[in-house]
This record gives sequence, C-alpha cells and structure tokens, in this order.
Amino acid sequence: MKLSDLDTPAVLIDVDRADANLQRFQAYADAHGLRVRPHIKTHKLPRFAKRQVELGAVGITCQKLGEAEVMADAGLTDIFIPYNIIGKAKLDRLVALHNRIKIAVTADSAATVSGLAAAFAGSAKPLDVLVECDTGMGRCGVQTPDAAVALAKVIDAAGDLRFAGFMTYPKAGGVPQNQAWLAAAKQKAADAGLDPRIISNGGSPDMWRAHEVTAATEHRPGTYIYMDRFQVAKNAGTWDDCALTVLATVVSRPTDNRAVIDAGSKSLSSDTFGMEGFGRIVEFPDAVITSLSEEHGTIDLSACTLKPQIGDRVRIIPNHACVVSNLFDSVVLISGDEVVDIAPVAARGRVG
Amino acid sequence: MKLSDLDTPAVLIDVDRADANLQRFQAYADAHGLRVRPHIKTHKLPRFAKRQVELGAVGITCQKLGEAEVMADAGLTDIFIPYNIIGKAKLDRLVALHNRIKIAVTADSAATVSGLAAAFAGSAKPLDVLVECDTGMGRCGVQTPDAAVALAKVIDAAGDLRFAGFMTYPKAGGVPQNQAWLAAAKQKAADAGLDPRIISNGGSPDMWRAHEVTAATEHRPGTYIYMDRFQVAKNAGTWDDCALTVLATVVSRPTDNRAVIDAGSKSLSSDTFGMEGFGRIVEFPDAVITSLSEEHGTIDLSACTLKPQIGDRVRIIPNHACVVSNLFDSVVLISGDEVVDIAPVAARGRVG
Repeated sequence: MKLSDLDTPAVLIDVDRADANLQRFQAYADAHGLRVRPHIKTHKLPRFAKRQVELGAVGITCQKLGEAEVMADAGLTDIFIPYNIIGKAKLDRLVALHNRIKIAVTADSAATVSGLAAAFAGSAKPLDVLVECDTGMGRCGVQTPDAAVALAKVIDAAGDLRFAGFMTYPKAGGVPQNQAWLAAAKQKAADAGLDPRIISNGGSPDMWRAHEVTAATEHRPGTYIYMDRFQVAKNAGTWDDCALTVLATVVSRPTDNRAVIDAGSKSLSSDTFGMEGFGRIVEFPDAVITSLSEEHGTIDLSACTLKPQIGDRVRIIPNHACVVSNLFDSVVLISGDEVVDIAPVAARGRVG
Repeated sequence: MKLSDLDTPAVLIDVDRADANLQRFQAYADAHGLRVRPHIKTHKLPRFAKRQVELGAVGITCQKLGEAEVMADAGLTDIFIPYNIIGKAKLDRLVALHNRIKIAVTADSAATVSGLAAAFAGSAKPLDVLVECDTGMGRCGVQTPDAAVALAKVIDAAGDLRFAGFMTYPKAGGVPQNQAWLAAAKQKAADAGLDPRIISNGGSPDMWRAHEVTAATEHRPGTYIYMDRFQVAKNAGTWDDCALTVLATVVSRPTDNRAVIDAGSKSLSSDTFGMEGFGRIVEFPDAVITSLSEEHGTIDLSACTLKPQIGDRVRIIPNHACVVSNLFDSVVLISGDEVVDIAPVAARGRVG
C-alpha cells in the first residue's frame, strides 16, 4: 500500500525518522551517563514504548494512570507517573497497577502523600514517591528546595511509601535555574540524611542541554520521537527530523491567495505555543495556515509562487505532535512512500 | 449513581438544560417560519440528533462523511453535508450513503461539481447540491452572488446532480451583510430561471437574529444544544443555559494563588476564540484558567476570596463545547446531581 492509497486526513509516522530520533537522544544520554525515561504521551503506542526500552531506556513515563494501564497491559514493566494521584478510585487503580509492575509517582503536597500512605498501608511492596519540584515552570511542584526536603521527610515517615527522589518539568530555556534548584535540593536532602536516588528532569525543547543539569540522574523526553514545528523553533531538531505529518487534501480554492484543506482543529489541534499559524506545509513552506475550524484549515498563499490546486494533497508538520496523536484513533506508519502498518493509538484519550 | 461517584476528568451533559435549549430555538424558528437543520458536531450523539428531529428539525447537518455514516447507521434519514467531497474514496462512500438515505452536499468549485457528476453519473437518484457561498466568513465558498449563480448553472447542467440552493456559514456579527449577499444570489438565480429551494444559513452566535436573514429558508445551529463560554460572550445564551461542563479535581495548590486541576488541553482543548483563559469555573467564577498542558490546567486564584483545596471538585464551562465532545470517548448524562446514563460519543473523531 502506498501513501497515494490513503484517504485524508490521516496521520503519517515516518518510522525511519522516528527511530533515528530515538537512537540519537539515547546515544547522547549514554555518552553523558544520563538515564532516559521517555514520555509516551507523544506516540501513545506500545510498540514505540517497547522500542525505547530496547534502545536503553530504563522505563517509561505516563502522565495519567489510564495511559500506564494501557502500557502495562502491553507488557511494559517499569512506569513513572509524575502526577498527584488523588481520590479513592484512582488510588485503588494505582495499588492494583503497582501489584502488577514497578510503579513510581510524584507528590507535591502533604495531602497527596497522606492519600498515598493510606492506600498503601500494609502493602507488601512499598511505593516509590518522588517530590515534584517547581523549578521555574509555574505549574505543579513545591516552591523551594527546603520545601522539597520537608515533603521528602513526610514521605520517608510514611511507612509504606519510599522517598525516591525529586522530579521536575522545567521551564523551557531555564537550564541554569533548573540545575541550581535541583542541586540545592539534592544537597539539602543529603544534609538531612535522605537519599534522592532519582532526580528526574524532563522536556524536549532543552533536551540537548540535559547534561548541563548535572544534578539530574534521568531525563524524560517526549516529543523527541516525532519532533514538531515548536521543537524545530526551539532548535531541538530540524524539519528533516519531523516524523509526524498530517496528510490533507485541498478541498477549496476560493480566491487566488486562499486554499482550504480538510484538516482543521480536529486534526491539527489549536495549539500555537505562541507561534503564528497552525503548522508548516511541507510542499508549500511559504504558505501560512491562518485559521482552523474543526474540519477546515484556511491557508494564506500570498507568499507562495507555486500554489496548490483542488484535490492536491499536502503534508503538514503540526505545531505540537503529541496532541495530534490524541486526536486520531489510528496512525499510519510509513517508510518513504510505502505504508508499513496502521496502528491503533492504544493510549489515546486516557485522561483519567 | 451520583455525580460524586464519578472519577475525573469527565464530561457532564445536563439533559434538562440541553433539551430546554433545543426547544427554545425550535420554538423561535417555528415562530418565524424558519426550518431548523441542527449541526450534530456539538454533541455527536444519535440520541440528541433524534430528539432534534422529534422536536421539528427537518433533518441534521454533519460536517464530514464519517459523521453522516454514524448518524445514518443510527437511523437518521435526512443529512446535509456542507462540504466539498473530493476524491474517489469519499465519492464512493457518498454514493453508498445516498443510496441508503436522503443526502445533500455543497460545492464551491467546478472541480468539486465535476467529481460529483462523475460519481453520480447514471445514478437512479440524483444528488442535491447546494452552492457554498462566502458571505463574509473568509473560509470556503464562491465569492460573489454572480459566481454563485454561475456555479448553480454548472450543477444544473450536470445530468445526475440537482441544484438545490445556496448555503453559507456566515461571519459572526455579519447579519446584514449575510442577508444582502443571499438575497442578491436568490434574485439572480430566479432571473436565470433557477430555483434555489433551500437557502441554508448557519451558526449559533447570531442564531437569535436568524429571522433577519429573510432570504434563508433554514438555519443550522450547532452549539445551541450545549452552549459554552464563547456563546455566552456572544449573548446567545446565559451561564444557566450551559449544559456541558467538565468535572475536574484540584490536584495541586502550589502557592496561595495557584491551583492545578486534572483537566488540561486533552479535556478542555486549546480553543480560545480570542478570549482570556480556557473556561469558566462554575464554583469559582473569579478564577482564571491561565494555561493548559495536556493533563494540567493551571488556575490563577488572585481574584478569589474563597479558594479550592486539594481534592475539591470543580465544574468548568469550556470555551468551546464541540471540541470537548470530540476529546472524550463517552459523556455522562446528568439530571441535577443524578447520573442518568453514560453515552459513547458515537461520531467522535470522524475526521474523514
């Protein structure tokens, strides 16, 4: 089966590029003695999670329990969920999952630790808990290294939990700040007689500077497998590294400078990350996808010398690859122009 | 089952509000002699499509073939697809669907008409084709009333197609411009001896002014069933009309003025429609959802006197209800605090 046999819109994954991206970062991390624990949110596919482990990853990262359950069902055995697991329903699922495979989670409050401690009371297998640290991102996380150590002590004092270290999702561009924060937390933990075995750093935008965060023991890249327009803007990769594209058809050419494609926000998502436009059209790099409706992408062709015609197909590198994976029931794996396989996105839509 | 028994995030549909919204617009349209052809993209649920017809809708609207196939399978028999259907794979599906139920489509170019004519050549049942008109939105559509009539003639001349009228998705706030455009096209069509039986107008933001577009014979509201933050901003409804909310849990309170919930862009979508923030929190209307990651919603509580605690649940009216329906495999139908049913979102993800 060839690309030309596919109907549109469709998500194409260039498996050769994806594999090269995985190998490149693993080799970099190996060279710096840094462990890799990839975030599967980008691909949501067991086959790529397994390939990441095969290449040397120490395990995988899932953002939600539902994703981890899918990956455990597929045979993954070491999963980190860097999330505050709250409420009886989720805690019961967490205990069940921990009884099957190796699980670690994060906490950024005594309230979260208290829930975990109650759920794991009397457990045969203590649960690894890392303290989530806000080293600059401004999302979850304790606010200071001292607060990190204080929460580590709370975890350490809860009998069936095991303090395992520190975790951060850092602010893009904040490498020195992140390193200083984590190094301070590490030192203060040691001073308090605690052992932060794992110091887990994350993110793809600054992944080639991961070795500068010397306090970290592992890195959790996600988007690196597919790359996207934002990662290229951040110089994490080049256009030729981008493995995920959305195949679309030009369905309308209402004016000389306007085209409309059959991929809108239901295919590309509305994520902009502050950039102009909603993706890069591979065949028409000077075109601008100026607006999206759910099923229409409107394109300004003013800057293009060559212009597409109705029925032409184009491939779009989206602003954000991860959210595109979440919009499609299946993705098409390709090698060159050849369709290799069609893969259901097994962990799609697992928000809980 | 009660709301309190649900895990989060979950999409809640208040069935009483939804039904009141449907009845209110149907009554308005009936009073003005305007037909209603609701767009199912908002709910994607056969049960609500059937209810819309039961209340008086002449049929339904689907944006893509895949949605129409789901609705036809569920028993809907009159479906308008206001889209340029391009390419053999989709044209074959269109013919198959048209053989089962009553279908109409749009075209805005001779290229689209030519594909339709070839696919329906020799068909026992001619296909109704409306000309899509760009009356101000700047998306698809012919650019002038004269161009609309010219394309109507092309359709009329294609043996197995039947020119059925004009269709527009108008610019929000452009009621007089829309009316003038359609009235001109109608007059020019009559002058050319053509009969635009259907003049189909759309959109929820200006739906209470639909009667001012006297050229139109029908209206295609979508979001009116659920309403959302954007529709309230456009005065199409009130907060108390909003039938879709996302139930979420506060998972972190890193600072006095920051909360993080377990609903991010995978639950609320990144759609802003130019508004500040990513939704309205019913219990904390002064809170601002300032940013979304895929699984985190970050909230600024600066303006709140009362503030939520970790583990508290909140309900969010999203900026755009339709895209939220598309993100969840199922929605929870509620009446007050009682769970009435859990409904699979049958037409979710049908992008092709």
